[in-house]
Amino acid sequence: MKSLKQRLGEIEALGGMGNLLFWDKQVMLAAGGHGARKKQMETLALVAHERRTSKELGDCLDALHKHPDLRAVLSPMEAATVREARRDYTRATRMPKELEVRLAALRSSGYDAWSKARETSDFQIMVPALEEWLEALKEEAAAVAPEMRPYDYCLDKFERGATVEKIDAIFSSIKQPLIDLLRKVVAENKSVAIPGWSELKFPLDSQKKLGEKIVREMGFKLENGRLDNFGGHPSTTPISSPTDVRLTTRYLEDNLMFGIGATIHEAGHGLYEQGRDLEASENGLIASGPPSLGLHESQSLLWERSVGLSREFWSHYWSRGVVEAFPELESSLGRISHEDFYRQINVVKPGFQIRVDADELSYPLHVLLRYEIEKGLFDGSLSVQEIPGVWKAKMEEYVGAAPKDDAEGCLQDVHWGMGSFGYFPTYVIGAIYACQIFDAADRDMGGELRQQVGEGRLLPLREWLRDKIHRVGSVYETAEELVELVTGKPMDTGLYLGHLTTKYADIYLNDG
Amino acid sequence: MKSLKQRLGEIEALGGMGNLLFWDKQVMLAAGGHGARKKQMETLALVAHERRTSKELGDCLDALHKHPDLRAVLSPMEAATVREARRDYTRATRMPKELEVRLAALRSSGYDAWSKARETSDFQIMVPALEEWLEALKEEAAAVAPEMRPYDYCLDKFERGATVEKIDAIFSSIKQPLIDLLRKVVAENKSVAIPGWSELKFPLDSQKKLGEKIVREMGFKLENGRLDNFGGHPSTTPISSPTDVRLTTRYLEDNLMFGIGATIHEAGHGLYEQGRDLEASENGLIASGPPSLGLHESQSLLWERSVGLSREFWSHYWSRGVVEAFPELESSLGRISHEDFYRQINVVKPGFQIRVDADELSYPLHVLLRYEIEKGLFDGSLSVQEIPGVWKAKMEEYVGAAPKDDAEGCLQDVHWGMGSFGYFPTYVIGAIYACQIFDAADRDMGGELRQQVGEGRLLPLREWLRDKIHRVGSVYETAEELVELVTGKPMDTGLYLGHLTTKYADIYLNDG
Repeated sequence: MKSLKQRLGEIEALGGMGNLLFWDKQVMLAAGGHGARKKQMETLALVAHERRTSKELGDCLDALHKHPDLRAVLSPMEAATVREARRDYTRATRMPKELEVRLAALRSSGYDAWSKARETSDFQIMVPALEEWLEALKEEAAAVAPEMRPYDYCLDKFERGATVEKIDAIFSSIKQPLIDLLRKVVAENKSVAIPGWSELKFPLDSQKKLGEKIVREMGFKLENGRLDNFGGHPSTTPISSPTDVRLTTRYLEDNLMFGIGATIHEAGHGLYEQGRDLEASENGLIASGPPSLGLHESQSLLWERSVGLSREFWSHYWSRGVVEAFPELESSLGRISHEDFYRQINVVKPGFQIRVDADELSYPLHVLLRYEIEKGLFDGSLSVQEIPGVWKAKMEEYVGAAPKDDAEGCLQDVHWGMGSFGYFPTYVIGAIYACQIFDAADRDMGGELRQQVGEGRLLPLREWLRDKIHRVGSVYETAEELVELVTGKPMDTGLYLGHLTTKYADIYLNDG
Repeated sequence: MKSLKQRLGEIEALGGMGNLLFWDKQVMLAAGGHGARKKQMETLALVAHERRTSKELGDCLDALHKHPDLRAVLSPMEAATVREARRDYTRATRMPKELEVRLAALRSSGYDAWSKARETSDFQIMVPALEEWLEALKEEAAAVAPEMRPYDYCLDKFERGATVEKIDAIFSSIKQPLIDLLRKVVAENKSVAIPGWSELKFPLDSQKKLGEKIVREMGFKLENGRLDNFGGHPSTTPISSPTDVRLTTRYLEDNLMFGIGATIHEAGHGLYEQGRDLEASENGLIASGPPSLGLHESQSLLWERSVGLSREFWSHYWSRGVVEAFPELESSLGRISHEDFYRQINVVKPGFQIRVDADELSYPLHVLLRYEIEKGLFDGSLSVQEIPGVWKAKMEEYVGAAPKDDAEGCLQDVHWGMGSFGYFPTYVIGAIYACQIFDAADRDMGGELRQQVGEGRLLPLREWLRDKIHRVGSVYETAEELVELVTGKPMDTGLYLGHLTTKYADIYLNDG
């Protein structure tokens, strides 16, 4: 393994540098530096590609693979590393150079087309790029993983082992119940918001301090990372996990929960990266990383929703967090109970159009809609030209309101322009896993998890997640296997639906 | 040239990444991230080394070199790039791999030895490292540039074309006059400091704003870089010149001029990097960079001293900079004239031991002492063991006071522990060039430069420097050639001595 570890360690170090180039570009880089940064990123990608496809690496992997008794000489993490490295090597070497160049160009031109299309709400501007993407991705799948159907390949890239069949089964079991529940909540027409809430202004400096306090108490180590407040989309960037993990967030003066929610969400991602097996990481064992994006998202959503949108969490952090953090607002906040705040942050916004601002209940329906469209585009039952129409019809059906134009509709997300087909489902997979994992943690803690959260004791949960999920990395090939092992059962959409039903019935449908 | 430009552009991009890793390590990286950062830096160094020594690059350079009429097909900047790239390639490929590894290890162990030695003021701890360095550097010179004497090679690495003969000639012409002048000033025993000055506390936020104001008015573009205040040693890091140049500085509450001086100094370096030929940089023409460290230092010193320590500068920036920036100190500052402040910041501190805090007059003597010791170590007339004794004797002779111990004496600088022999002279070369270049700029501006500075108009000077120095890069092989071309004469130590004599006679020896 020595030579392999060294080679993979180099590839990992180059990956970390790429992430630094990216993080710095977002948070630090001055306006005039972006041209040169692009060149640096391209050069690094080239160098990393050379190393990921080098003959020496291939020989090394081959020799290990042919070893008569690999499992006897390698640790589980080492064996998994060989498996992951072989897949990466095979896929990277199968990718035609010409196609790679085309994809890179398309990422850039597709992004530009999307920007322009959204700005003018003119979907036609984006049609050629989307058609090119579909062609290119089918070519990529055919070259790289000829044994898979193209859309399965796209799904599998983000969620190892995912297929149309599996996602169909999951989504069909939640779709109608979610639509029904949402309709019921909306029909109730009950206001649970705090009167005058949106007029309150929360000073940004104090929000920043509150965010840091919560993140620290979640167990995110600022000596192994950073938390920066900047203007863009919140994100988590592992420069070198587990020792250098950087979160960005964004605070808004008139929307306290936007920033605090984003901070908790990113810290959930960050804890996953900080919880990786240090020794394995330092030894170039790439299987110390997470097996799928869905599982990564489960960690951010578990903290953001199961913890950060829970009654228990705010029974502690309302008075000992918010009220304390904003003494200048005491006269307003003093009259608000933690139960009021809990309801405020769980307001269901009926007919809301924008995915990223959607509530917990509508959110999965936004994703389902995108998945159905993507599937249709790949199996040929839908053409690119039909997207806007289908989008409007489905929005009307699922969340009860059509977007006023395409900018607010099918042009709202950047993903398709960048070629990220197959990515959206990981958001819902993550949400389902989050419920299931939280439930298993509670079971393992003798049913005391909620009480701990209510006392502001968040570290036991982090410890449990670290042991069961974070440090296990990709020892198991799919998130599915790991989740089944940890929770004792396969993916459980019933638990997810049950959680949503109970929670929103409690807030909206019962008395109170 | 196409393939060469591309190859050199990649090497340049990798260099920029290395600088980003370094800048980020200084300014952003959390304590726990340094282990992984070291690995990233090592990996990047390895990748860059592979590219700098690749056979393809060598073939490319060879083919160009053999071209019958290179100067006819290439621009001056292109031809200079071929020259610089060939030197770099030759030196890089001649370096034995084993030695390279030893040097890297020595940089790290030598640094550690120095830290420990200085902490305990025990020079013996550092003796083995210094002896190893001398051996290793002689080996490096013999392998890489067998035509040069070892110490000439060391000098040339930092100041292209410098030799012991040349430096001897320069230093011997300034040494005794400087010692004499310093003695005369000290003998005068006149206090020019402002009473109570050191008790004033300048709020850091306002210092920061003042620093930014000055830097902007010097013409440093913050849209093509950054200015960060952090705890360490001030520095300039080109992530990608001319479009991303980052300055760090450090403000101290009770020493206004420390931070402002450091800021102006680094901005001088920064203007050089921002003034590089953009098109050439973008095209991988490495000759767009400066020909020597001494010339780089001339730019920082010209701004720091010829401008920032001048009476004219403060005749503008005292009232329109300092007094305005610190309204809370108005009652104290209101009683101080810009002439008082000018004298305050030019106080000569007799017998001062520490180079980095020395005044303009003592500073070159600190450097001369180090040069004489280095020269002796290389020509064998001095042993490592003799350093502390020689240091004390020379300090006594040159600045009139011996250090109280080795920590304050020969262990004060990190350079030798890191193997930077031959580096110190660039500080004095820079100071001499700074005077000469400022004088030439004044000549070209019809003698109106000082008046412009006095009116706070700094941009014409920046423009002149950009045209004459910054964007010329290394078209000429040595700084010497370029300075002669720009100023109309070879290095002029008389001008430098004349400037110091006039200035300090005015402050200390005349009435007033």
